Amino acid sequence: MPEETNKINEGTRGPENTVYIGKKPTMNYVLAVVTQFNSGMPEVTIKARGNAISRAVDVKEIVLNRFLPNVKEKAIKTSSEELVNEDGTRSKVSAIQITLIK
Amino acid sequence: MPEETNKINEGTRGPENTVYIGKKPTMNYVLAVVTQFNSGMPEVTIKARGNAISRAVDVKEIVLNRFLPNVKEKAIKTSSEELVNEDGTRSKVSAIQITLIK
Repeated sequence: MPEETNKINEGTRGPENTVYIGKKPTMNYVLAVVTQFNSGMPEVTIKARGNAISRAVDVKEIVLNRFLPNVKEKAIKTSSEELVNEDGTRSKVSAIQITLIK
Repeated sequence: MPEETNKINEGTRGPENTVYIGKKPTMNYVLAVVTQFNSGMPEVTIKARGNAISRAVDVKEIVLNRFLPNVKEKAIKTSSEELVNEDGTRSKVSAIQITLIK
């Protein structure tokens, strides 16, 4: 499952220049995004699910307003994903995908 | 300050068919959005700040996937707002604005 990989890559570079937002301090993810752009990536995608969605928006706002004013928003998409809980039941969780471009 | 008015209108119709997301159960806001569309509004905007941003995305996903499949996303915008705390200090908070159209 790609979701498992996402957790391991949390806050680091995932496939296709993606930063997955988890429960670490916001600035960790800001640094991850800034580092990717500074290493030459023309495009970075921020992904989050559930309560981390608010933090994803914080990361985007801080990167654009404070660190990289020449980076722009390319797209924001939201979606709904189905998770299987530990007890086998299924629940839906919202997700967001924010793509930034230099 | 418009912020004060927003709090009063939370979950109800604000200016320009806006639903402000607060701390009430998600379905309250889903109902508010569905009611506005069913009363003839062609467009409804969902607004949230801080931790309520995740709930705003939940509301959008539930309205589109479960209640009003003919409603589409028109635009998603994020922004950064400055708040004055009780002790007079200022802090920034992220905000989201999701516009839905029938």
